[in-house]
Amino acid sequence: MPTTVTVRVNFEAAHRLHNPDQSAEWNRETYGKCNNPHGHGHNYVLEVTVEGPVDPTIGYLIDMKILKDILRYRIIDEVDHRFLNIEVPWLEGVIPSAENLARAFFDRVAGRLPEGVVLSRVTVHETERNSASYWAG
Amino acid sequence: MPTTVTVRVNFEAAHRLHNPDQSAEWNRETYGKCNNPHGHGHNYVLEVTVEGPVDPTIGYLIDMKILKDILRYRIIDEVDHRFLNIEVPWLEGVIPSAENLARAFFDRVAGRLPEGVVLSRVTVHETERNSASYWAG
Amino acid sequence: MPTTVTVRVNFEAAHRLHNPDQSAEWNRETYGKCNNPHGHGHNYVLEVTVEGPVDPTIGYLIDMKILKDILRYRIIDEVDHRFLNIEVPWLEGVIPSAENLARAFFDRVAGRLPEGVVLSRVTVHETERNSASYWAG
Amino acid sequence: MPTTVTVRVNFEAAHRLHNPDQSAEWNRETYGKCNNPHGHGHNYVLEVTVEGPVDPTIGYLIDMKILKDILRYRIIDEVDHRFLNIEVPWLEGVIPSAENLARAFFDRVAGRLPEGVVLSRVTVHETERNSASYWAG
Amino acid sequence: MPTTVTVRVNFEAAHRLHNPDQSAEWNRETYGKCNNPHGHGHNYVLEVTVEGPVDPTIGYLIDMKILKDILRYRIIDEVDHRFLNIEVPWLEGVIPSAENLARAFFDRVAGRLPEGVVLSRVTVHETERNSASYWAG
Amino acid sequence: MPTTVTVRVNFEAAHRLHNPDQSAEWNRETYGKCNNPHGHGHNYVLEVTVEGPVDPTIGYLIDMKILKDILRYRIIDEVDHRFLNIEVPWLEGVIPSAENLARAFFDRVAGRLPEGVVLSRVTVHETERNSASYWAG
Repeated sequence: MPTTVTVRVNFEAAHRLHNPDQSAEWNRETYGKCNNPHGHGHNYVLEVTVEGPVDPTIGYLIDMKILKDILRYRIIDEVDHRFLNIEVPWLEGVIPSAENLARAFFDRVAGRLPEGVVLSRVTVHETERNSASYWAG
Repeated sequence: MPTTVTVRVNFEAAHRLHNPDQSAEWNRETYGKCNNPHGHGHNYVLEVTVEGPVDPTIGYLIDMKILKDILRYRIIDEVDHRFLNIEVPWLEGVIPSAENLARAFFDRVAGRLPEGVVLSRVTVHETERNSASYWAG
Repeated sequence: MPTTVTVRVNFEAAHRLHNPDQSAEWNRETYGKCNNPHGHGHNYVLEVTVEGPVDPTIGYLIDMKILKDILRYRIIDEVDHRFLNIEVPWLEGVIPSAENLARAFFDRVAGRLPEGVVLSRVTVHETERNSASYWAG
Repeated sequence: MPTTVTVRVNFEAAHRLHNPDQSAEWNRETYGKCNNPHGHGHNYVLEVTVEGPVDPTIGYLIDMKILKDILRYRIIDEVDHRFLNIEVPWLEGVIPSAENLARAFFDRVAGRLPEGVVLSRVTVHETERNSASYWAG
Repeated sequence: MPTTVTVRVNFEAAHRLHNPDQSAEWNRETYGKCNNPHGHGHNYVLEVTVEGPVDPTIGYLIDMKILKDILRYRIIDEVDHRFLNIEVPWLEGVIPSAENLARAFFDRVAGRLPEGVVLSRVTVHETERNSASYWAG
Repeated sequence: MPTTVTVRVNFEAAHRLHNPDQSAEWNRETYGKCNNPHGHGHNYVLEVTVEGPVDPTIGYLIDMKILKDILRYRIIDEVDHRFLNIEVPWLEGVIPSAENLARAFFDRVAGRLPEGVVLSRVTVHETERNSASYWAG
């Protein structure tokens, strides 16, 4: 299936890199200023790619508006303007690195797409210079 | 072949999502405001990736200027400042969604590249947030 | 008053540069491909700057969400996914150049802002390379 | 003096819009989700414009590297990866809106520039769509 | 006159910050790595703002295509893919800092615009983070 | 291994497309203005993608700061503000096209990453419109 569709949505959130199972010293050494106790924040960009056949009657692989609505309902409404370490139930126990967010967001969307549409990749951009992707192997 | 070259070119065009084989009501329900009769428009970005061996004498996989000239001659000159539903002969009968444009543009370029250069992917960005890709499977 | 707030919102529309009071030949010569009869389109960015005193209790010159809501209600909802020459009553008789849109949008917003907030500048970006601004002299 | 120089630097921080002198209800109604107790965050862009004469021997109004060093030392090192409401002594009592940050940053830099260089404008971009400027009237 | 039009054009060039009237040591200390003898380069963006009345018959302050043609003919064709210190006659003796380029480009365009159109500002972006502007005082 | 991390870093350099084994005429015909003897320049963006397992204790595939430090030490410090044809020992004999730079940079980083982290792709953006990638086949 050689067609993919990609959409980008935004959210603004705070996070802190911290592993509560490790000592304060370990956390400080491992994460540096990203471990500051009160957190810092990002204008995150969530980029999602899906693949599948194009419906010849409609000309869409998926209505991009529907895809964005799924992302809003399953992810954005829950994480926007939140402190990711403590305010999102399904991120409990997850160190909110870009890598872990990409995987958690992938799992929130996979299986929620219309029949025939496959989630192929989720990328989380923390900044224009740092991103992580999780994808169907 | 592990080297690819990617170029981006722009065009500005109007389009309307509309399937003339379906009823006006079906079209309105399916496409919403994208079905407005007089069309709307985009600053499209066409992104094309090719792969192949790098010529050791020149240091190029392909001269990017030549690649852009092919895109201009085969695509941009025909679609720029046009209403895509009715003014482009080779888009006749094509619902001008991003998915269908990506495929149509792929077919316009494949087979027109210099020997040894393979078209690997065409992406059409309707906006900075919406894109579709068609690629050699 | 040395503080300003600037917001950006988007819309996608088609337009055609055409003066119906002039001959077809004049129009073609003056506007070139921008005069194509079926129009072309843009991902427009509307950028609006306001100035005024900062309310010390709230810390805002204006709630940016309210400013965007005004822009959506007065402008975006009316022009998004429209053909600007014929589908927008308050643009009737306006050649939809960037210059004229900037002025028309300015007039749609001035006088609709909360008390004490002054509209200082409206910029219409047709592309990342072309824009026009209209501002309080 | 008709020459200006503008530089941009980044920082990532968390903030919460909250006026501690007002009730929880007032805060919630005024700021909405921006009042969430644990804060949210941004990839802030700080844009600073200075003006003055160009030194004919050097060709600079100011060495942009020196200007950025001043911004780093006076502002970025203090706010980057911080929660702006409580971790920055010179922001104590300041509701960290874009407007108030622009003014506070202006005051941190004015008077610290090399002789003959005048600070003319400070803009704080919270996102690509929201910004505030404070400038010498 | 409250309307302005702004266009952006690009060129790629090499330059070296060096004052031949000063010692090698002075140059090295003043400019650091920007003084490297073989030069370095930038993807420059030249941004030009003009102001004037909008012609009611055409709807333009100036045809942006004509404005870009003037910039191409007067500036871009001369500096693109050049080493700015030695290959551009009208930059002879000019230390090619952003400040000095902005002024030199201003002088190349002022007086070459159609009647009634006034050059109000020229900005030279060396990078997305560094720029200088020269403007009519 | 379905997780990747991507970072972007910048450098500004001059280069000239020229094959010293060929005649001046061949070079001029092949490279056009990119063969200008004094070179031209770019704001290069180097984009690097690595893959590997995410360490569950840290939540990282690799600390992006460490990845950027490797890029700075192995590449950026050597090429920034340089003329790539003659000032970088490990680029000697390499025609500095985007394709060849991508491969040379790949080779500078592969084998230097922490255990378990695999270099999967290096992209060199000469401009926002031209790039080349080299990747593990």
